[in-house]
Amino acid sequence: MSVLLRNIKTQTTRLQQQRYMSVVASVLKYSEFGDPAKVIEVQQETVADPSNGEVLVKTLGAPINPADINTIQGKYPVKPQFPAVGGNECVSEVVAVGGQVGGLKVGDRVVPFATGLGTWRSHALYKESNLMKVPNSIGIAEAATITVNPCTAYRMLKDFVPLKAGDTVIQNGANSACGQAVIQLCRAWGVDCVGIVRDRPEFSKLRDYLKDLGAAEILTEEELRTTKIFKDGLFKKPKLALNCVGGKNALEVSRHLDNQGIMVTYGGMSREPVTVPTASLIFKDLQFSGFWMTRWTKQNAQNPKRQEMFSELFELIGKGALKAPAHEMIAFTDYKTAVTNALSIQGFVGKKYIFTF
Amino acid sequence: MSVLLRNIKTQTTRLQQQRYMSVVASVLKYSEFGDPAKVIEVQQETVADPSNGEVLVKTLGAPINPADINTIQGKYPVKPQFPAVGGNECVSEVVAVGGQVGGLKVGDRVVPFATGLGTWRSHALYKESNLMKVPNSIGIAEAATITVNPCTAYRMLKDFVPLKAGDTVIQNGANSACGQAVIQLCRAWGVDCVGIVRDRPEFSKLRDYLKDLGAAEILTEEELRTTKIFKDGLFKKPKLALNCVGGKNALEVSRHLDNQGIMVTYGGMSREPVTVPTASLIFKDLQFSGFWMTRWTKQNAQNPKRQEMFSELFELIGKGALKAPAHEMIAFTDYKTAVTNALSIQGFVGKKYIFTF
Repeated sequence: MSVLLRNIKTQTTRLQQQRYMSVVASVLKYSEFGDPAKVIEVQQETVADPSNGEVLVKTLGAPINPADINTIQGKYPVKPQFPAVGGNECVSEVVAVGGQVGGLKVGDRVVPFATGLGTWRSHALYKESNLMKVPNSIGIAEAATITVNPCTAYRMLKDFVPLKAGDTVIQNGANSACGQAVIQLCRAWGVDCVGIVRDRPEFSKLRDYLKDLGAAEILTEEELRTTKIFKDGLFKKPKLALNCVGGKNALEVSRHLDNQGIMVTYGGMSREPVTVPTASLIFKDLQFSGFWMTRWTKQNAQNPKRQEMFSELFELIGKGALKAPAHEMIAFTDYKTAVTNALSIQGFVGKKYIFTF
Repeated sequence: MSVLLRNIKTQTTRLQQQRYMSVVASVLKYSEFGDPAKVIEVQQETVADPSNGEVLVKTLGAPINPADINTIQGKYPVKPQFPAVGGNECVSEVVAVGGQVGGLKVGDRVVPFATGLGTWRSHALYKESNLMKVPNSIGIAEAATITVNPCTAYRMLKDFVPLKAGDTVIQNGANSACGQAVIQLCRAWGVDCVGIVRDRPEFSKLRDYLKDLGAAEILTEEELRTTKIFKDGLFKKPKLALNCVGGKNALEVSRHLDNQGIMVTYGGMSREPVTVPTASLIFKDLQFSGFWMTRWTKQNAQNPKRQEMFSELFELIGKGALKAPAHEMIAFTDYKTAVTNALSIQGFVGKKYIFTF
């Protein structure tokens, strides 16, 4: 296959494509819901020549997100058709283009512009309209993980409360992949980000790591209950809280919100619902909303805000202000290890696995 | 005092006022928080002549709202200065006007345009700017109770979700004073209102009463859990839920909301918080907000929407489309009975007491 790939990479004209196609791709597939380590299997699959409007890509990196695992477990509201291919994110290199493909050429780097495409595969045939070109200068890990977490962080910070430099955002799960993106975007925009994490043996190491990323303050859940950083005016009372935990943790976080503050929920790691005191709703005028990147992407496919967002994210990545979350590149052949560990906390900070093929 | 009042009522010019002022008012006062039946006492108080911009009024009716009781108990977030006078609503008749009063004349009926004025008193001296003229043709009970519940119902139906004829609103506490206003406004606007009430011995009588007011359907909490009226398409899935109960009841109500639906909380009769499943926030995109009429009134004192609202409410009352909630006029001398029973359910539908002086 390596000879074949080398051949494909040398293609520059569409006429030549006809002779070299028919790539055999390695694909991580499943045909029933269940434990990802058991239901996934590696399959070889012949990929056809790109037709009109299609692009053949080679995957450079494809991350494992919690939602990918939940989908395979059957716990996600989006149910794939079987047989299904795992994964929703990747960065790939264009190795051949079909007719009527105007915006992409061989050698371009692309990320999928839609979810549910099945990205855990060495090669794929995608519609050009489902791909977005990304600068080749951006690291594989940053590009492979840009469409979910940095976008989620970006939209949650932009679309619920008008934030200006000096304002405060509070978030739990501050060490999550999304939490790390929130911290860095807040730093870039001059917003004080106060992060909450669970107490753990290496807490001070984690706090230092997140403060280095740009967090204004990192507290344990325990510290949150008694902190006076808002009362004493060290930070403004937050108008925005980001919640991926739920339960008591979310309740404690919401108590620190300023009047008219909004809590945006995008995850529920504790598997407990969000509890909202009646007085907070009526007298403090708090609002509780949710955010789902998949829906935003569907509803804003043609919205210029989307391109604005990616331009700003690329710029921040380009100047080193937005790094990929702590991660490990892992060969797709080690998928059992990767999918098994993807939902558990590895070390002092959550580590994201990124498949290489 | 009756002679004095008769004299005042005959006043028509400002010149004459000088001779007849100095009214002795009966006032329901309290000087500490506690059981309203114990801390309230009747006091006589001399009311001075109206100065520039002031209006002397005689109270025709002043209702007891749950928030009034909670305020006296010290459980409300707004704490009065002692000695305090109970009550926030009333309808009064103008009996004398001071200098520089342009918009009101003797004989006009008025309601207070601000909260915290202390309306449980036979006579009061108010600033003209704190009063709103109401048509004399409107019943005492309707006018005395217009600023809290019909306004709360109106704003909750207008300001959170755009509603059109044929849409559905779901609400719990459908037999509350506000619930009854919601039902009637929905009927006037062609919106299907599905109301939830607690099961009780006289449920069918209550259901008939609320359906007569205009409710599309009335269900007990038990019936709500298994109803198929939304699944079967009998009613559209509601985009708006109004909650004054909290706890499990609010959770069950929120389960019937359509995607992107909003639950607005304006009370918490169960004293249990609102529980929000994470999946509802993220995947159904539900939103949980609160509403407090007192805040709206403060923030919209000069908003033309306010006059629009009252004009529409007066019009609806005028043509019999909006009636006062079930009520009983009660002499202020019976205040112990009234304040003791105001928070408990009296009979098949909550009954509102309205003081007369």
